[in-house]
Amino acid sequence: MSIDALSAPLVPDNRAAGAWLYERVAEWYPLDRSITGNGLRKTLDCIGEHIPLTTCEIPTGTAVFDWTIPREWNVREAYIKTPSGERIADFREHNLHVLGYSVPVHEKVSLETLREHVFTLPDKPEWVPYRNSYYKENWGFCMAHRQLESLEDGEYEVHIDSTLEDGSLTYAECYLPGEREDEFLLSAHACHPSIANDNLSGLAIAAWLARALQDRPHRYSYRFVFAPGTIGAIAWLARNEAGAQVVRHGLVLACLGDSGQSTYKRSRRGDAEIDLAAQYVLSQSGQPHAVLDFSPYGYDERQYCSPGFDLPMGCFMRTPPGHYPEYHTSADNLELVQADCLADSLAKVAAVIAVIEGNGRYRNLNPKCEPQLGKRGLYSAIGGRTDTRDLEMAMLWALNLSDGGNSLLDIAVRSGYRFDQIHAAAGALEEAGLLSPV
Amino acid sequence: MSIDALSAPLVPDNRAAGAWLYERVAEWYPLDRSITGNGLRKTLDCIGEHIPLTTCEIPTGTAVFDWTIPREWNVREAYIKTPSGERIADFREHNLHVLGYSVPVHEKVSLETLREHVFTLPDKPEWVPYRNSYYKENWGFCMAHRQLESLEDGEYEVHIDSTLEDGSLTYAECYLPGEREDEFLLSAHACHPSIANDNLSGLAIAAWLARALQDRPHRYSYRFVFAPGTIGAIAWLARNEAGAQVVRHGLVLACLGDSGQSTYKRSRRGDAEIDLAAQYVLSQSGQPHAVLDFSPYGYDERQYCSPGFDLPMGCFMRTPPGHYPEYHTSADNLELVQADCLADSLAKVAAVIAVIEGNGRYRNLNPKCEPQLGKRGLYSAIGGRTDTRDLEMAMLWALNLSDGGNSLLDIAVRSGYRFDQIHAAAGALEEAGLLSPV
Amino acid sequence: MSIDALSAPLVPDNRAAGAWLYERVAEWYPLDRSITGNGLRKTLDCIGEHIPLTTCEIPTGTAVFDWTIPREWNVREAYIKTPSGERIADFREHNLHVLGYSVPVHEKVSLETLREHVFTLPDKPEWVPYRNSYYKENWGFCMAHRQLESLEDGEYEVHIDSTLEDGSLTYAECYLPGEREDEFLLSAHACHPSIANDNLSGLAIAAWLARALQDRPHRYSYRFVFAPGTIGAIAWLARNEAGAQVVRHGLVLACLGDSGQSTYKRSRRGDAEIDLAAQYVLSQSGQPHAVLDFSPYGYDERQYCSPGFDLPMGCFMRTPPGHYPEYHTSADNLELVQADCLADSLAKVAAVIAVIEGNGRYRNLNPKCEPQLGKRGLYSAIGGRTDTRDLEMAMLWALNLSDGGNSLLDIAVRSGYRFDQIHAAAGALEEAGLLSPV
Repeated sequence: MSIDALSAPLVPDNRAAGAWLYERVAEWYPLDRSITGNGLRKTLDCIGEHIPLTTCEIPTGTAVFDWTIPREWNVREAYIKTPSGERIADFREHNLHVLGYSVPVHEKVSLETLREHVFTLPDKPEWVPYRNSYYKENWGFCMAHRQLESLEDGEYEVHIDSTLEDGSLTYAECYLPGEREDEFLLSAHACHPSIANDNLSGLAIAAWLARALQDRPHRYSYRFVFAPGTIGAIAWLARNEAGAQVVRHGLVLACLGDSGQSTYKRSRRGDAEIDLAAQYVLSQSGQPHAVLDFSPYGYDERQYCSPGFDLPMGCFMRTPPGHYPEYHTSADNLELVQADCLADSLAKVAAVIAVIEGNGRYRNLNPKCEPQLGKRGLYSAIGGRTDTRDLEMAMLWALNLSDGGNSLLDIAVRSGYRFDQIHAAAGALEEAGLLSPV
Repeated sequence: MSIDALSAPLVPDNRAAGAWLYERVAEWYPLDRSITGNGLRKTLDCIGEHIPLTTCEIPTGTAVFDWTIPREWNVREAYIKTPSGERIADFREHNLHVLGYSVPVHEKVSLETLREHVFTLPDKPEWVPYRNSYYKENWGFCMAHRQLESLEDGEYEVHIDSTLEDGSLTYAECYLPGEREDEFLLSAHACHPSIANDNLSGLAIAAWLARALQDRPHRYSYRFVFAPGTIGAIAWLARNEAGAQVVRHGLVLACLGDSGQSTYKRSRRGDAEIDLAAQYVLSQSGQPHAVLDFSPYGYDERQYCSPGFDLPMGCFMRTPPGHYPEYHTSADNLELVQADCLADSLAKVAAVIAVIEGNGRYRNLNPKCEPQLGKRGLYSAIGGRTDTRDLEMAMLWALNLSDGGNSLLDIAVRSGYRFDQIHAAAGALEEAGLLSPV
Repeated sequence: MSIDALSAPLVPDNRAAGAWLYERVAEWYPLDRSITGNGLRKTLDCIGEHIPLTTCEIPTGTAVFDWTIPREWNVREAYIKTPSGERIADFREHNLHVLGYSVPVHEKVSLETLREHVFTLPDKPEWVPYRNSYYKENWGFCMAHRQLESLEDGEYEVHIDSTLEDGSLTYAECYLPGEREDEFLLSAHACHPSIANDNLSGLAIAAWLARALQDRPHRYSYRFVFAPGTIGAIAWLARNEAGAQVVRHGLVLACLGDSGQSTYKRSRRGDAEIDLAAQYVLSQSGQPHAVLDFSPYGYDERQYCSPGFDLPMGCFMRTPPGHYPEYHTSADNLELVQADCLADSLAKVAAVIAVIEGNGRYRNLNPKCEPQLGKRGLYSAIGGRTDTRDLEMAMLWALNLSDGGNSLLDIAVRSGYRFDQIHAAAGALEEAGLLSPV
């Protein structure tokens, strides 16, 4: 992959990275996450084993813009007992069996009544769907449609030992100060229970990047936000309304471990530097990929790109949400996610970071005619050779277009030379006193 | 047709509309119109039977910008008497037989001389051409080429009992005040004699729209101008130079009854709201269609879009003038025009009007993060469903892009949702206090 | 070719022009040019036989921006004597045999040492390459690879009787004042020795144009610069830093005699009037052609389009440098260049000049509605004819778009009418008092 030159500093060994990422996904998979509760806390603690995290608890009832932090939800146990006494849809077997935010219930109901509270996927009869009812009180179970169809008439005992009480919503941040206060924000949602690709892939890759960046100098300050989807991102924005103003670039990370092609969804602005950098990296990858226009649906770019913030944040994915059959089902599991796909996604995000880090605008200090590169040892001594050398050409491009307006990425795109070539050329020219950063 | 939702208020029954339109065309077809005269007056009277019309007479000799209102022309009778005494090219049989604005003549001429005053279509030997000589005194006849070829040598009596005298040029307007003074101008030329598609189709559709709009509330004020081509439009503009400044949108209507595909010709501006709306409606129609760039040739958009006015007016047609073989001949008759084609054109123009009426810009009053649609009853209660619902998505788009800059039509085009969906979403959001019109 | 109407005033007879151009190329071919020296002076003298030239000598050591005028180089004789006493690589047989700017040398060397100073083209074993070492002292020979391979071991006498001494760099200018001080700059490099297409084709065509323009009135002032590549253009710019500000349009001329398709390389601006004019002429030619974006590599557009000047200058060529196999070899000779290709290139450049000369912006003095062309004798008297006449249409376009912003070329491109038609229409309208130049 031709973006290795860009990703290598953060991802020196793709295979080792893939193994590490897959281990994290597998380790965090069983935890019973939701938008609040102990499973979410436990997950953030696990992430905190690898990077410095600051955790924040926001009490139930706190207003965050148009929303209110809900009650905290925890489940001790939950199951259905059939007329023959068999326990099915047992929360201990799979945490998807309980409708998210179910109120406690313990009663006996007919099959007819039970059916009103059971969610299945008739088209995928073996898979358990993932369903929530965050903002309307309800109880319910999710199960395989085949199992529902096999149930006989009779009296069923439904048992959900949950608590829905005042508590708090938890999110965590990792902040890595750089040369500048300007920030690169990376955000991953942490609220899905045992769903591997949609959630854990993003958390693991964000954790890797934070771990790798903390050991290296960087121009931008980096902030990683691990928060429940929607309400968590809204809570973070509400508490960081001023801080959001220093976000210069950002990415939402999700669905990064399946075998589909890489996909970048542009920010609302559409032509932010992050949009150009992500598009550039994908086009350089030489692999099939997709670049999608912004839409106000998807992950937390919905909040970051709301018109009152309009942050320059896109979303990096493989197959977008809702576009793979396993999405929001029990089949989004440890078989769907693959170590090499995780590593490939990581390398691309690392390359985007490298482009953003290396990008800049320069001014040609010798703008009238070309400078004589030869006398500075920057040019081939024997004229007339037709084998043009890439670095020389990259220098000519960097000199010609460095009028303060074009960034190195602009120059790379217009010239057709690689970003790392243009970047190296600009570095050599700056050292020779021919370019000055603006 | 997917634009029914837009056109229905003005055109509830396409079949009935088609019948009405065809009746009007058939009724007005025999009248001997020109750019002045009694046939033109009679036509405007007929239109006035259906809608409130104000008629305006401008005396011969009046200066209108670079032009002068010509003398008024009327014909009592006209014919050629052959050597054998037969009357041919008789005005009573078809008013195309007389060269428009022929001076009176009554003399005997040789076949050779006659030929210098006879216009035919050698390529279409059965059809009579439509010819005028408004600004250079002449007399002449138009006839089928086959007939001309059959004439024998001898003395011919040419008889045109016409008057070309000081009088006036007539045009009429129907003004329907709306909530705003801003105007939507619709213009149709009324100067062609027995030519069905090129003229009468536009007059009939304009009459329908005026009749339908007078019974309904509307944001814009509507003005319908029924005037002779070129000199009539120039006269209207000369007398309404200030009034033209309130024209926000406009359409010239012509050639709307043939079976060709619908065609929209853009205004000189090219990206006026009327251009976007017409293009949108045609693209939504699901039918073959054409959108043409402006050119300074065609109908009265030539005048409305002259650089000193540059009004945002396009031209709505089916086959453009000069592009169907029957154009400006006796074959542009009641067989060329079809009721269902008239109705289809009407529905599309009505849809354009509906888009313009419904289009607007809003400001999101809760611009920081999404508002919680659920607590306002605007969102599905059970999260996690993958069947995205169109109205919800339309609301998310309207919220995200309503920053005062994007119109609802812009949002429809960018989102891919239908205009009526975005419009309905904006209405629901305005009602919920989340959007405010700007 | 449909651009004949444009090129004819400067090139009335293509065949005669082709013959004249080929004669010049053949006449100037044997001279031993370099970036300084007597061969260059002799070439400029030859050009000066046809047009009024001002020659400029810049002393060695003069600073020109970042560069310094080098020592002057002249060669009296040069050859290699083989062990058997045969003279090979003799400068008198072909001036490419000596590495450009070779220091004098007279010694005996082994074949091994000789090989370090011999340049060949292994892939083109019969051709002699063209090589220089302007800025690093070296001596060397260029020869056919087949010849090098045939050399036997033994002692070789290398003899280069050259001088590399303080002297001067020579360039020449032809200035033809026009109605305006604004300049059209044409530049051709004059430093290549016996290379026919890459150099002489451009010099010959520039000479023709200067000769033809001096006998005709023209709006712009024309300046032709004949200078060695790179250092010569830099020297000219250094001495004319203020004068460069009046350059409104410009072309670098090179590689204009081969049989490849015509190629225009845009200025750094990309949308300068010269870019539009050249692209227009090529598109009108009806022949295959290429229009390339600017790149900071190639001929002296590198200097003229450096960011401190950013002159609106493109480069007119046939096959671009480096893209034909004979480039910078002995095979770029009098067989590669063809009289009809030279004439074709000349006609196209002449057409570009005609477009630039004729292009202008006008203001419609009767902007409200169309003026009545008929009463001014500018319009067909009999209305209703469907054979639209090109001049009438061109007038309507010129009237409609002449708002001071659109040039005649813009109007030609937008309307689809030819530039000469729009130009003629504007002339007729100006004469009738309907348009005024801005």
